[in-house]
Amino acid sequence: MDASPSQTTWHTEYINANMFMSVGLRQIIHSGQTRYQHVQLLETEPFGRSLVLDGRTQSTEADEYVYHEALVQPVMMAHANPRHVFIAGGGEGATAREVLRHSFVERLTMVDLDQEVVELCKQHLPLHHAGSFDDPRLNLLHEDALAYLESTHDQFDIVIVDVPDPLEAGPAYMLYTEEFYAAVRSCLAPGGLMVTQSGPGGPLNHTEVFTAIHHTVAASFPRAHPYRVFVPSFGTTWGFVIGAPAGEPELPELNAATVDLRLSNRVGNTLRHYDGITHTGLFALPKYLRLALDAETRLITKSAPLYAV
Amino acid sequence: MDASPSQTTWHTEYINANMFMSVGLRQIIHSGQTRYQHVQLLETEPFGRSLVLDGRTQSTEADEYVYHEALVQPVMMAHANPRHVFIAGGGEGATAREVLRHSFVERLTMVDLDQEVVELCKQHLPLHHAGSFDDPRLNLLHEDALAYLESTHDQFDIVIVDVPDPLEAGPAYMLYTEEFYAAVRSCLAPGGLMVTQSGPGGPLNHTEVFTAIHHTVAASFPRAHPYRVFVPSFGTTWGFVIGAPAGEPELPELNAATVDLRLSNRVGNTLRHYDGITHTGLFALPKYLRLALDAETRLITKSAPLYAV
Amino acid sequence: MDASPSQTTWHTEYINANMFMSVGLRQIIHSGQTRYQHVQLLETEPFGRSLVLDGRTQSTEADEYVYHEALVQPVMMAHANPRHVFIAGGGEGATAREVLRHSFVERLTMVDLDQEVVELCKQHLPLHHAGSFDDPRLNLLHEDALAYLESTHDQFDIVIVDVPDPLEAGPAYMLYTEEFYAAVRSCLAPGGLMVTQSGPGGPLNHTEVFTAIHHTVAASFPRAHPYRVFVPSFGTTWGFVIGAPAGEPELPELNAATVDLRLSNRVGNTLRHYDGITHTGLFALPKYLRLALDAETRLITKSAPLYAV
Amino acid sequence: MDASPSQTTWHTEYINANMFMSVGLRQIIHSGQTRYQHVQLLETEPFGRSLVLDGRTQSTEADEYVYHEALVQPVMMAHANPRHVFIAGGGEGATAREVLRHSFVERLTMVDLDQEVVELCKQHLPLHHAGSFDDPRLNLLHEDALAYLESTHDQFDIVIVDVPDPLEAGPAYMLYTEEFYAAVRSCLAPGGLMVTQSGPGGPLNHTEVFTAIHHTVAASFPRAHPYRVFVPSFGTTWGFVIGAPAGEPELPELNAATVDLRLSNRVGNTLRHYDGITHTGLFALPKYLRLALDAETRLITKSAPLYAV
Repeated sequence: MDASPSQTTWHTEYINANMFMSVGLRQIIHSGQTRYQHVQLLETEPFGRSLVLDGRTQSTEADEYVYHEALVQPVMMAHANPRHVFIAGGGEGATAREVLRHSFVERLTMVDLDQEVVELCKQHLPLHHAGSFDDPRLNLLHEDALAYLESTHDQFDIVIVDVPDPLEAGPAYMLYTEEFYAAVRSCLAPGGLMVTQSGPGGPLNHTEVFTAIHHTVAASFPRAHPYRVFVPSFGTTWGFVIGAPAGEPELPELNAATVDLRLSNRVGNTLRHYDGITHTGLFALPKYLRLALDAETRLITKSAPLYAV
Repeated sequence: MDASPSQTTWHTEYINANMFMSVGLRQIIHSGQTRYQHVQLLETEPFGRSLVLDGRTQSTEADEYVYHEALVQPVMMAHANPRHVFIAGGGEGATAREVLRHSFVERLTMVDLDQEVVELCKQHLPLHHAGSFDDPRLNLLHEDALAYLESTHDQFDIVIVDVPDPLEAGPAYMLYTEEFYAAVRSCLAPGGLMVTQSGPGGPLNHTEVFTAIHHTVAASFPRAHPYRVFVPSFGTTWGFVIGAPAGEPELPELNAATVDLRLSNRVGNTLRHYDGITHTGLFALPKYLRLALDAETRLITKSAPLYAV
Repeated sequence: MDASPSQTTWHTEYINANMFMSVGLRQIIHSGQTRYQHVQLLETEPFGRSLVLDGRTQSTEADEYVYHEALVQPVMMAHANPRHVFIAGGGEGATAREVLRHSFVERLTMVDLDQEVVELCKQHLPLHHAGSFDDPRLNLLHEDALAYLESTHDQFDIVIVDVPDPLEAGPAYMLYTEEFYAAVRSCLAPGGLMVTQSGPGGPLNHTEVFTAIHHTVAASFPRAHPYRVFVPSFGTTWGFVIGAPAGEPELPELNAATVDLRLSNRVGNTLRHYDGITHTGLFALPKYLRLALDAETRLITKSAPLYAV
Repeated sequence: MDASPSQTTWHTEYINANMFMSVGLRQIIHSGQTRYQHVQLLETEPFGRSLVLDGRTQSTEADEYVYHEALVQPVMMAHANPRHVFIAGGGEGATAREVLRHSFVERLTMVDLDQEVVELCKQHLPLHHAGSFDDPRLNLLHEDALAYLESTHDQFDIVIVDVPDPLEAGPAYMLYTEEFYAAVRSCLAPGGLMVTQSGPGGPLNHTEVFTAIHHTVAASFPRAHPYRVFVPSFGTTWGFVIGAPAGEPELPELNAATVDLRLSNRVGNTLRHYDGITHTGLFALPKYLRLALDAETRLITKSAPLYAV
């Protein structure tokens, strides 16, 4: 017998009522309620340190680079010269890290409602933020992102929406509505683009919210470009949607060589997951998913919001 | 209170010592030991009927189309005119189904060691095999695939390896060795190709066996083309490797339009997952995976076999 | 590696929101909804065949003798000559089996609301009922036990209440009220006694329902005698309460030798769990439990029912 | 929706290969390897702070009083005047607490091999030890209990064995052998008694080690008195065996009134679980258990040790 017992402490997350994933738990760093949501900082065997909001894993040290590079880099690559960037949410500081990696970025405004969560991430997730909270280009505010966008006079080249899934009692469901996208559009500089995380994108769960978010972005922007990536700690592929102006070349057709050239000019060889070929793979969606995106008719609005399972 | 209780019966599968997935269990259709392995036929809430060998899910009704189309169709598309096909394993009959979908196929030889498993699948997995066991083109044998290939005088256009992961006590570990690939090569007709399922291919588990299988195929064939797809019931993306002759155009560059044209000619619009754009996505691997494939040096041989975790 | 994988199919039962027990699952014999409740017939590794109603294990082959002997035999022993017996519930037929073991019993009336459950038990739980459904002394009815007792003119020496815990939407909560005990009393022959299963009785859960049921029985009968026994498949000790007439010797003081003599005369040496010394142990309650029983003030009534956790 | 998610962090303990219990986990206070064993200090929802050695819960704040009073008080009551007491193990300090509660006790020698575990308990389990480590009557040593007893010239009125179950690679299996009991006997003052915790004692697990430990104690002492109590955090009743000299009145017959009188004289009304009636219940074993104790023939020796499941 091994003197040390096999794994006895676990973090369990329900994917839906009939499915859950459990991972070995090393440490409960923090567990509590903020003004807006339940927050846990856990350290697990397979994934290292993780942020869990209202019982849902937001990102983990082991694979956050997959999620955050996929969220940030494609939309940055699709813009010729992104200098002013806005992040809604992004409490871990890793989305900011990906933006600030670009030396041409002059100003990053990040609005995350929940200061407590951000402070906890600042303290406990150094590998996530990698010092991005100290970057002088960052302007960090704690208020409602929708209210902020509706009242600001700033213009942004890129808007990145990195907030939790739309939960019925969660703080973020309004940030998936047509009304929110209207506010985003009004703050975009000419040629500006938006990207939003869009929930699960696998064969069995892509119609939960992904297709509806895509449909709503498509109704709100001249062009909508869906894509997805597999994130192990989510147990599924994960969807994203870019809202883009007219007149651009189709984003999925953005040449792999062009992506690699722009990456080389802007961030050097610092990424682990994303590059030109990866870009091609992100946007080349399987048939069932393309069909489901086409068939979707749900429009998410303030009066008809959509909640994640 | 809801009159019906929440899910109380579960199927649990360890992904590794620190991670497991549980799915609601509707029925244990069969559970027992054959001469070669432990076999379970389960019916689960999220995935329907599933074949589980030695505790590992092989395929499920809900997403087997993703796995089996990805296993079979790319290699079929890469061949100009595949008429004689060989399957090692494939007990559920779904791999045969994908092959027999091609009207140009004249003869399919399927060698699955474990007759008991095949009989159970024939009886309990009708949605998997869809009648393929009754196709007159099928020649089904129950013996060791390696011994068969070493002794046969047949030549095949396509060889498909669809056997369980290489487990230490499992029946299939020899079918991932250099010696096996030599036997395959000797049975390939000119221009013939092989594809093998190659184990998990996600960010955290791609070096378990995928990269080593690719390295061994690359050492055994003029060209090796790795690809991967996300399969929900496996909880991860899954790897495949094609072994191809020299002189072919690079398989990943097979044009999406060409794929769609060939599909249209050969199988019509009968697939759910695979088509030209899907093909592009399957082969456009993320950066970390391409780097790991390049860096791999393990060669799997009879005297130095590799076992899955 | 062992050719057969370790346990992968499980039955899970929540004891409360923060605690559950999982046992290896061999077979799901039946799972469905009757007119009154959700019913499962499971076969588990540690416990054999089990009846589960609304997600709660009622009894299992491996340890039902502990529960059913403890439910039936003490109250039978406390009566000098029990000839007419009534069972409310008892669908498995094992409570009837324990009663019918007594050759002096002339008539057993069993009223179980849910005919479907009884039929399933008859078919699938032969080790539970052991043929008791075929005993000519048994009069089996499917109606509401409270309504039956309120309208019958029969008189019973012993009334045994063997129904599920009082769940908010369950069929049985009325059978734990003062009104029900009044109906029972009106049907008891002189010297007659009642016993009811009374929910968990362990150090951490005895105040869920046990103490309140005891308090209500004590308010309804001249004497109330609580006792408890450990039942492995419940994961806890389990409570029972006897309601007895005045003038009897204190039941807990029923001499072990007297119990053994009566057992010998009435049922021979056929029991596995219960005898004179066991009887002494059942009624010798630990200090914390006696204090809690004394301190309880909740009276369960039709207008103020009590629901199990 | 409740703002706080349901329980997501769990401590899981296998009772055997086909059965486990999971409890909500609040905090991992410590987890590591000492020189002798794996040690965890956990805080769980249902049980508060717990000591877990080699993956097995030793005791928890919520119910340790049941275990420790049952371990210590009966053997103390059975002795007319226990002044010198020895504890093997007992790292939490709660066994010492129960002994030191007796004002007549003059000297308590406690030998626990693993100083690291004791230091962790001293720091993190204040409700367990309740200051007993600071009692001037305590002589705490860290060495092998068997070696100590074989070499000491001290004589004890009471020896209490409170060490983990006999695990194959664990530190304690020798303390359940005939050789150990011989060493104990040689250190007992005239009229002295020993008690040992003896593993699970429920209907399905009493023959794992309980009956064999009882048989070995019975072979080593003039009299052996087995008893058991239900401990919720163990998920089962738990066995104990007292080894007693000849000429004593049978311990199970120790009158409840005598127990209460002695308790009153020695410790006042300070206990929560144990008193005269509780004593009667502890020793009044169910029929199946008495039969199994009688039928047992395994003798545990140095050359034929016994390991827990």
